[in-house]
Amino acid sequence: MASSALLKRTVLIKSIVNGFQASRAYASVAVGTDLISAAPDVALQKARSWDEGVSSKFATTPLKGIFKDKKVVIFGLPGAYTGVCSAQHVPSYKNNIDKFKAKGIDSVICVAVNDPYVMNGWAEKLQAKEAIEFYGDFDGSFHKKLDLTIDLSAALLGPRSHRWSAYVVDGKIKVLNVEEKPSEFEVSGGDVLLGQI
Amino acid sequence: MASSALLKRTVLIKSIVNGFQASRAYASVAVGTDLISAAPDVALQKARSWDEGVSSKFATTPLKGIFKDKKVVIFGLPGAYTGVCSAQHVPSYKNNIDKFKAKGIDSVICVAVNDPYVMNGWAEKLQAKEAIEFYGDFDGSFHKKLDLTIDLSAALLGPRSHRWSAYVVDGKIKVLNVEEKPSEFEVSGGDVLLGQI
Repeated sequence: MASSALLKRTVLIKSIVNGFQASRAYASVAVGTDLISAAPDVALQKARSWDEGVSSKFATTPLKGIFKDKKVVIFGLPGAYTGVCSAQHVPSYKNNIDKFKAKGIDSVICVAVNDPYVMNGWAEKLQAKEAIEFYGDFDGSFHKKLDLTIDLSAALLGPRSHRWSAYVVDGKIKVLNVEEKPSEFEVSGGDVLLGQI
Repeated sequence: MASSALLKRTVLIKSIVNGFQASRAYASVAVGTDLISAAPDVALQKARSWDEGVSSKFATTPLKGIFKDKKVVIFGLPGAYTGVCSAQHVPSYKNNIDKFKAKGIDSVICVAVNDPYVMNGWAEKLQAKEAIEFYGDFDGSFHKKLDLTIDLSAALLGPRSHRWSAYVVDGKIKVLNVEEKPSEFEVSGGDVLLGQI
């Protein structure tokens, strides 16, 4: 599935600054894409404890509820509790949260192909829950719709997402950065995105 | 996939004590099954940090390495960071570890359809890593082979495992307990299994 998605992809890599910043336009997601109309049936799952999950009746959040009428910074990563994600990717947003807020950003969101309870446990461990909203994409449907899935079975992870970031205004993608390899951390960090808003 | 596995299943439910202890014999796993020969190609992934994963070159552990010539207590559950698992299932083994060791058990193992980094984060949070060996079954292949998978998408988890426990000697299943529903905790706890060894 991941490999056929890969074949379908139209990958345009464009170096922006000194070869450091690369952005890709995928077949189904690019600058200009309206996430709300592109994926009206897709929902994410707000990170929460299991008990909160039960009391919420396992409610999910449609993309409209996340993006409509809002300025959103969102970044995706291969998995909770993996290396670059914990050590660099999340901190690069957490540590810049005041600067994002100063630019009028309504929410800074972290998403991964994990369930919302794992995302919650990880967010608590990183002490990042106050600054960043964490969402699970437990069945990968959000990342599949965006054509941002990748098979990371070799790293014992299975089907996950690329490492990416985006600036989204009222559902429309204004900036999109996708790392060439999920082990890299060149274009998807908070510092880079701050300079693009 | 989960539903076809369900159809294939031969489910025999047998009440043992006051309707409280129930054991099921599945099509592909039952008391007497030799796990090593039933699933020679299946491996689990020892829980570890991402950095340990990298330095181990993402090594996995074949079932033979886990069960051969050993007396093993193993229990499986729907997921790291879920309710019954964190609050009751793991503690029921952790708190009885001395009693299991006194019975000559070589290892007490917890397994779930999660990646090994999530399992490691959860084990650390539960302060259970010293007593219990945690393994991931990231692609579900172990539980598929045992026909113990269940679709828990309604709880935002996706394809996971039943809640179960077993006593395994040199690869052969001597005792097997599977909860009728993964939300239940009647037959798969450490106290029950202690009485069955």
